[in-house]
Amino acid sequence: MKEVRIGLIGTGYIGRAHAIAFSQVSTVFQLQGKLVREMVAEINPELAARRAEEFGFNRSTGDWRELVADPNIDVVDICSPNFLHKEMALEAIKHGKHVYSEKPLALSSADAKEMVEAARKAGVKTLVGFNYMKNPTAKLAKEIIANGEIGEVVHFYGTHNEDYMADPLAPIHWHCFKETAGLGTLGDLAAHIVNMAQYLVGDVESVCGDLQTVIKERPEKEGSSVMVPVENEDQAHAMMRFSNGAMGVIESSRIACGRKMGLNYVITGTKGSLMFTQERMAEIKLYRHDEPANRQGFKTLLVGPEHPDYAPFCGGAGHGIGFNDQKTVEVRDLINGLAADTPIWPDFEEGWKVSRVLDAIALSHEQGRWIQVQEL
Amino acid sequence: MKEVRIGLIGTGYIGRAHAIAFSQVSTVFQLQGKLVREMVAEINPELAARRAEEFGFNRSTGDWRELVADPNIDVVDICSPNFLHKEMALEAIKHGKHVYSEKPLALSSADAKEMVEAARKAGVKTLVGFNYMKNPTAKLAKEIIANGEIGEVVHFYGTHNEDYMADPLAPIHWHCFKETAGLGTLGDLAAHIVNMAQYLVGDVESVCGDLQTVIKERPEKEGSSVMVPVENEDQAHAMMRFSNGAMGVIESSRIACGRKMGLNYVITGTKGSLMFTQERMAEIKLYRHDEPANRQGFKTLLVGPEHPDYAPFCGGAGHGIGFNDQKTVEVRDLINGLAADTPIWPDFEEGWKVSRVLDAIALSHEQGRWIQVQEL
Amino acid sequence: MKEVRIGLIGTGYIGRAHAIAFSQVSTVFQLQGKLVREMVAEINPELAARRAEEFGFNRSTGDWRELVADPNIDVVDICSPNFLHKEMALEAIKHGKHVYSEKPLALSSADAKEMVEAARKAGVKTLVGFNYMKNPTAKLAKEIIANGEIGEVVHFYGTHNEDYMADPLAPIHWHCFKETAGLGTLGDLAAHIVNMAQYLVGDVESVCGDLQTVIKERPEKEGSSVMVPVENEDQAHAMMRFSNGAMGVIESSRIACGRKMGLNYVITGTKGSLMFTQERMAEIKLYRHDEPANRQGFKTLLVGPEHPDYAPFCGGAGHGIGFNDQKTVEVRDLINGLAADTPIWPDFEEGWKVSRVLDAIALSHEQGRWIQVQEL
Amino acid sequence: MKEVRIGLIGTGYIGRAHAIAFSQVSTVFQLQGKLVREMVAEINPELAARRAEEFGFNRSTGDWRELVADPNIDVVDICSPNFLHKEMALEAIKHGKHVYSEKPLALSSADAKEMVEAARKAGVKTLVGFNYMKNPTAKLAKEIIANGEIGEVVHFYGTHNEDYMADPLAPIHWHCFKETAGLGTLGDLAAHIVNMAQYLVGDVESVCGDLQTVIKERPEKEGSSVMVPVENEDQAHAMMRFSNGAMGVIESSRIACGRKMGLNYVITGTKGSLMFTQERMAEIKLYRHDEPANRQGFKTLLVGPEHPDYAPFCGGAGHGIGFNDQKTVEVRDLINGLAADTPIWPDFEEGWKVSRVLDAIALSHEQGRWIQVQEL
Repeated sequence: MKEVRIGLIGTGYIGRAHAIAFSQVSTVFQLQGKLVREMVAEINPELAARRAEEFGFNRSTGDWRELVADPNIDVVDICSPNFLHKEMALEAIKHGKHVYSEKPLALSSADAKEMVEAARKAGVKTLVGFNYMKNPTAKLAKEIIANGEIGEVVHFYGTHNEDYMADPLAPIHWHCFKETAGLGTLGDLAAHIVNMAQYLVGDVESVCGDLQTVIKERPEKEGSSVMVPVENEDQAHAMMRFSNGAMGVIESSRIACGRKMGLNYVITGTKGSLMFTQERMAEIKLYRHDEPANRQGFKTLLVGPEHPDYAPFCGGAGHGIGFNDQKTVEVRDLINGLAADTPIWPDFEEGWKVSRVLDAIALSHEQGRWIQVQEL
Repeated sequence: MKEVRIGLIGTGYIGRAHAIAFSQVSTVFQLQGKLVREMVAEINPELAARRAEEFGFNRSTGDWRELVADPNIDVVDICSPNFLHKEMALEAIKHGKHVYSEKPLALSSADAKEMVEAARKAGVKTLVGFNYMKNPTAKLAKEIIANGEIGEVVHFYGTHNEDYMADPLAPIHWHCFKETAGLGTLGDLAAHIVNMAQYLVGDVESVCGDLQTVIKERPEKEGSSVMVPVENEDQAHAMMRFSNGAMGVIESSRIACGRKMGLNYVITGTKGSLMFTQERMAEIKLYRHDEPANRQGFKTLLVGPEHPDYAPFCGGAGHGIGFNDQKTVEVRDLINGLAADTPIWPDFEEGWKVSRVLDAIALSHEQGRWIQVQEL
Repeated sequence: MKEVRIGLIGTGYIGRAHAIAFSQVSTVFQLQGKLVREMVAEINPELAARRAEEFGFNRSTGDWRELVADPNIDVVDICSPNFLHKEMALEAIKHGKHVYSEKPLALSSADAKEMVEAARKAGVKTLVGFNYMKNPTAKLAKEIIANGEIGEVVHFYGTHNEDYMADPLAPIHWHCFKETAGLGTLGDLAAHIVNMAQYLVGDVESVCGDLQTVIKERPEKEGSSVMVPVENEDQAHAMMRFSNGAMGVIESSRIACGRKMGLNYVITGTKGSLMFTQERMAEIKLYRHDEPANRQGFKTLLVGPEHPDYAPFCGGAGHGIGFNDQKTVEVRDLINGLAADTPIWPDFEEGWKVSRVLDAIALSHEQGRWIQVQEL
Repeated sequence: MKEVRIGLIGTGYIGRAHAIAFSQVSTVFQLQGKLVREMVAEINPELAARRAEEFGFNRSTGDWRELVADPNIDVVDICSPNFLHKEMALEAIKHGKHVYSEKPLALSSADAKEMVEAARKAGVKTLVGFNYMKNPTAKLAKEIIANGEIGEVVHFYGTHNEDYMADPLAPIHWHCFKETAGLGTLGDLAAHIVNMAQYLVGDVESVCGDLQTVIKERPEKEGSSVMVPVENEDQAHAMMRFSNGAMGVIESSRIACGRKMGLNYVITGTKGSLMFTQERMAEIKLYRHDEPANRQGFKTLLVGPEHPDYAPFCGGAGHGIGFNDQKTVEVRDLINGLAADTPIWPDFEEGWKVSRVLDAIALSHEQGRWIQVQEL
């Protein structure tokens, strides 16, 4: 069986999630390729070595450039802070590596576009880690829509709201600066819901957005009285039109008190509706208008082995899968796509399209008008 | 005790709700005035007489002009189709009557403005029947916000979605024509959520909206193959900014499959949040960010005698009040305001302000730009 | 139209609910008889007069015996404390009056049996105020079961839990004494869920119960340090078998922290299930096992005009009815039954059967064995 | 670091779950020992070899007796059908192995007692796979109770209901026979909720139960018309008293239409309550009666890094963990307990106590009386 040798850059919170997925994926799924946990790169060699040990990788390095150049690496997995994605991906592509990058693909759609072009020219495969569209409920929603069970989609309402920055005394960090993060909550969180919208409804054609930085400065560090300006938005929302004519609204906030994983959507069709919240990730609610008037209602489908991608994890509905299991589905798609040379999605193209929508929202806010995303 | 003699015009669905409220209000509340169910007007005298009998009114007439001119009427209660509100209200005001009108106040904000002016000049009191802000949960939400329990409001998301026109073969009716209804779902449903937004957050300063007529024609009547064009929007949404700086989004649809009473709001503050849906009208969810991190969460408050306006109906939380009970609170406010000569709210001024926001949304859609509501 | 003249005894919490129902019922429903609010009795004539005024009754008295003997009363409505029900009902029956009594019918099933016999001999009609089975959702549940939509019922789980006595310093009151209340939470609350079980599943054949007085003494009055023993149970549960072979469990508590109106049921059939909680009185959840495995789930039916008894109150699903509206349905059944001389339910016979089940549970606890309810 | 070498017997549904846990545990947690996936045993050598490959184990065998005797195995993990647990565990203990067994420990409490004694004499450590008490929400519930946040526990209501046998034409299998399964739904499902009750409330002292076989015969195999008698109960419930005086009810069913993972509990204390359902495994609802009356309500805690055992999996609340993650916590406890020679729980003693409660319930049903569990 063909080997797929992974080089992982970055071992923070999301790097760990990747590592967990790598550790279990071969037991969960019967993969078409043989995953090899080859090398870990971290900012210093000691940390890299420790993580390699913890994560079950063969080798480690304190220099990511060494990793991307290593001949025994097939795919470079980028879990570094956002502002490094572009440089690392381009370098990896230069060495002919396939690239698996965390979202957002880059700090701007222009940068993302460059990355798409580079990958295309090099003929390498790409995957962006949008996580939540790998939840079986998302594929189920897509299947329900494709079957026509809710008719034509006419409205999409989606959010990705969290409250990790709700406390005004939460110290500043790299997410708050243009140079290191680009956009604020749009880049960090809204990327997920835009990807979900495009997955479930189709391409976004035009947008009109509004952004706001509510907490204008934050302590330099925990407990400090030195205040540093926040450079990007805490909350944003936008209206949109999809290429199929459907209307949409998305919301995103990093200060939305009480929303811990507020990736939610409500999809309205001409014959029914779907409702979902990631906080109850095992459930999706389906309403069909063609049922008798006295028996209409939202039905709660609890994801189970009859639904996509679930059975390899658990024997019964209600047992439940978690965040890392989503990543495990994502990794399965990566390994199978590389081993069998078949398309992988969401790829850099999708990553760029998401980024373009986000940039269009920001531009719309600046200019106070609707923006056709193709303007960018 | 001062008498407050009611003249009710219109006895359809909403007129019945008023009648039920009139029938029970004196038993539920210790009113400051004596409510007298004086006269009913309907389109023909027989129907008027029958309704007077059913609704417990003393007299009836087939001519609403007779009612508004009657010297033994103190307040004219307008429950006729929307396009008649203005004419009837102006005529009532001309006769010096106080006016209790169903929403929307008029088919346009210009018309509503005329009505406000007329009432002001005549020195009569006015009340608009927005129903849902009389739910004890709304007053409780207002109290929670006023107490600072969720800090400063930074975001409002509100909807009034229903599905009463979701079936494309549901026949055309007066709600679908400009001449009889003005706006579509905005005028019929969004009026409620705009009123709620202004009640809970404050005045809307600017808006940017999008509207769509999804089902472009409908059968002339049940089962007919003659199709008639729909003249106003089936669905709409808008971004807004409030005068206190908060951002907002509202949505409205009359084709939102599965939403039967989708008057919902999520209010985000700097220290907490509130969530509500009228389909679970006895509940409001409160989140406070200042609780210990391992004990944070949305708490479901079940409305009860410790909350505003509930105890006169029921002895305990969870017993529950209904739609007509909201109208009963509204009628209490009417009677007490008239008997004691104190302010009543929401008055025509608020009705006009709601109408102006809705017109601004429609104008924004036409012009593809943000509109300051004061432009209208 | 035949007159039905009401004599109301008792104007506390539940008497008020009756009064509200009387005030609105003729507007809501087209009754078969003409309801007349004739006379109110209270413990002293001043209070009686004040209540008659507030409740819209013609006359009043400080002596209930005068009321039951009055020739212009057709039906005596008993809203007094439980220990007076029997005496008042028997006296009313002696005068040939129909009787509408609040639950529990009496302090023991033996007493209840006497009342049933007296009513039968006198040929008067009776009604017991079980409230919650008049919720449209209950009739809908009965219809769903009767249609076979959930197959044969095999299991019933029901509760009536509240927390009105959860605070150990809540002062003693008449509910806590054998002489004035008989049983504790069983008589006060479980009566409702037993009635619901019998309504929806059928007669209870045998029971096995367990009772407990958790808070053994309470302050004589608010803030007092004089403690008085509690004489009956704070919490209880029982297993049961129904005459159709189904198994059941009921629970009841007056100290169930957080349950404000915990009248809940889960009914399991061979082909589906129903779930309900009175705290969300407008909803019932229906599951059908014959749906495709990947589309199974509990569907939330929101009660609306397509369901029983709802349309006269409101024009649309989700508008919602409240506690007093349930009482209004109950009063409609009373007036129509008396005016048209048709059966009324739940009558004293049902009241007695409920009481017998409760006594059997208490006896089972004393004897530590299953009890056939026919033993009593 | 000390090695802990695993020998896994059985690779069906639950064996796979163990394998997944073994594959990821070292990446998720920093273990105190080095887990080695040493050997797999299956019914035939080919299957065993294939599973060893899939599950990442070093060796395999078609004979479990070879595995339990192998000197390079430290712990025998028993994932075989229930009726084999006892023989395999005793044989493993005879060879001085530690034992990790799936529930139920044995087909009867007498058998379980033998296993407890054997393990004690041999001085080996034991663990029973009860899964759900390793959900972080369970440890959180225990912490909340231990803190006194809900006062003294006075009532426990728990269920483990599923519907995997609800279809009367679902073919017979080993779960339905006394010889292979012992009890029916009690042994298969109720074991979990009894374990949870003992974990959260304390030892069960006495029980009174009722059992029923609703579907008395089933097809020999899918589609067959040959019917085979079902030998054990489809549904059961029991009342119980705990050693601390609290009352309890448990329910269990394998034909409870719509319940896919109906492991639920409601715990009532003198100062508050907790509610949980495994179908929403990331949430637990907490009510505190000492909050102001107008701000009381159930608060939904969404499990996150501030709660026990969650942070190693995910960076934020709402990301969510799944069934296999619970098993991963269980395996962590196993490895750490063996490596550090510290107590592991739930051990065989707890497995036996659960089994004794279940046997007492069945005996109570036969004899129609309360049973002290110490009678067994």
